[in-house]
Amino acid sequence: MSQPVTAAMLVIGDEILSGRTKDKNIGYAAEYLTNMGIDLKEVRVVSDDLDEIADAVNALRHKYTYVFTSGGIGPTHDDITADGVAQAFGLPCEHHPEALAILREHYAKTDLDFTEARQRMARTPRGATLIENQVSKAPGFKIGNVHVMAGVPKIMQSMMDAIGPTLEGGAKVLSKHIDCPVGEGTIGGPLGEIQKKHSETMIGSYPKFDGRNITTQIVVRGRDEAQVDAAIADVEAMVAGLTG
Amino acid sequence: MSQPVTAAMLVIGDEILSGRTKDKNIGYAAEYLTNMGIDLKEVRVVSDDLDEIADAVNALRHKYTYVFTSGGIGPTHDDITADGVAQAFGLPCEHHPEALAILREHYAKTDLDFTEARQRMARTPRGATLIENQVSKAPGFKIGNVHVMAGVPKIMQSMMDAIGPTLEGGAKVLSKHIDCPVGEGTIGGPLGEIQKKHSETMIGSYPKFDGRNITTQIVVRGRDEAQVDAAIADVEAMVAGLTG
Repeated sequence: MSQPVTAAMLVIGDEILSGRTKDKNIGYAAEYLTNMGIDLKEVRVVSDDLDEIADAVNALRHKYTYVFTSGGIGPTHDDITADGVAQAFGLPCEHHPEALAILREHYAKTDLDFTEARQRMARTPRGATLIENQVSKAPGFKIGNVHVMAGVPKIMQSMMDAIGPTLEGGAKVLSKHIDCPVGEGTIGGPLGEIQKKHSETMIGSYPKFDGRNITTQIVVRGRDEAQVDAAIADVEAMVAGLTG
Repeated sequence: MSQPVTAAMLVIGDEILSGRTKDKNIGYAAEYLTNMGIDLKEVRVVSDDLDEIADAVNALRHKYTYVFTSGGIGPTHDDITADGVAQAFGLPCEHHPEALAILREHYAKTDLDFTEARQRMARTPRGATLIENQVSKAPGFKIGNVHVMAGVPKIMQSMMDAIGPTLEGGAKVLSKHIDCPVGEGTIGGPLGEIQKKHSETMIGSYPKFDGRNITTQIVVRGRDEAQVDAAIADVEAMVAGLTG
């Protein structure tokens, strides 16, 4: 079996922490990475603060195969993700020639000036490579194992698609589930026994509350289909025993 | 002006990191705390892993006034938040007599057995106080400055309401906004100048992309209404200059 490939996500922005904007990027990235066989192991959300960004990038980039960030790469004074990532790597943050060229060409086609503020969007840590932005052109960038993306969901998703083919995926994690008409409390004991028996799989149970009843979805995840199927068979037998 | 009251949120659960469940608790807590004048400064999401939970709790509880967790307090084998928090505090994790009594009384009224799995939900670090759960009875708990809540959004929200009156709120952060019909690139320069002039306020700008045009919402936040109004007036003058 191949080595697990791991990842962390870092969401940057006061607007998420104030609740003004509800994050949609964590769930999207989680699903995207899982589908590629990459284990998302940790997420952090930090404010638009240089040291907070740099400290989080350094904590995460040494611990996981990949780091993905979203937010803080626009043209305004509070967009300081590039500076924070540069600080984490001990690199200067400067205008990237290729990014400047992309943006200059883009704005030449519009009636908008290529202002100093817009030129901010071409800043990256020295040596970064660019991540294409099909939506609004201003690129993201990659430095080391850190991928820096926009916060606007459609743009972030476009960048994720650009990054995808460059990532080394792990063995895909298979997931199968069974709906169980009773609450977790009824199945917790036997389910723990099944988890012990099938230790190569990860068995989770997720309560669903519809305002009146609590039911449970039982999910078995694993990298080997035969192992997942064996665990699922034991879960099915347990559920049948409860409801039969 | 009173001292800012700060908070961190810790979301616990493999189901969030796999993308199977989309978190709704971060946005809810962010808005709830902001409305109380409490600054949410950081969020982390970690897996159902004892050391990851304990390390995150310890990193956050020493840094912020309050920590709020969601997830991992149900009756199954992978619900180990109480153990992780106990480990962080160096305390034993044991059945809380009051929680046992609440659950025993609850299940006596149902046709469900008070199984060993359900008794797991009464476990807390020694010395914890309980947080009421109006939805499904199994309580959350508070130990030190750490508040441990359920992951199911309706239950988490009920616990947040139970906790609310016990929290010391800071000065409320006021927020006013202006919609600006042009992109951030046009306003980035002058907005940076306005931020410098009104350094007591936090000025954010948030792009909105409707699939065709990018517009901007400019938000001014601060603890003093006169300061917020003064900054808003300068932003309004800037926007009027652009569109007039």
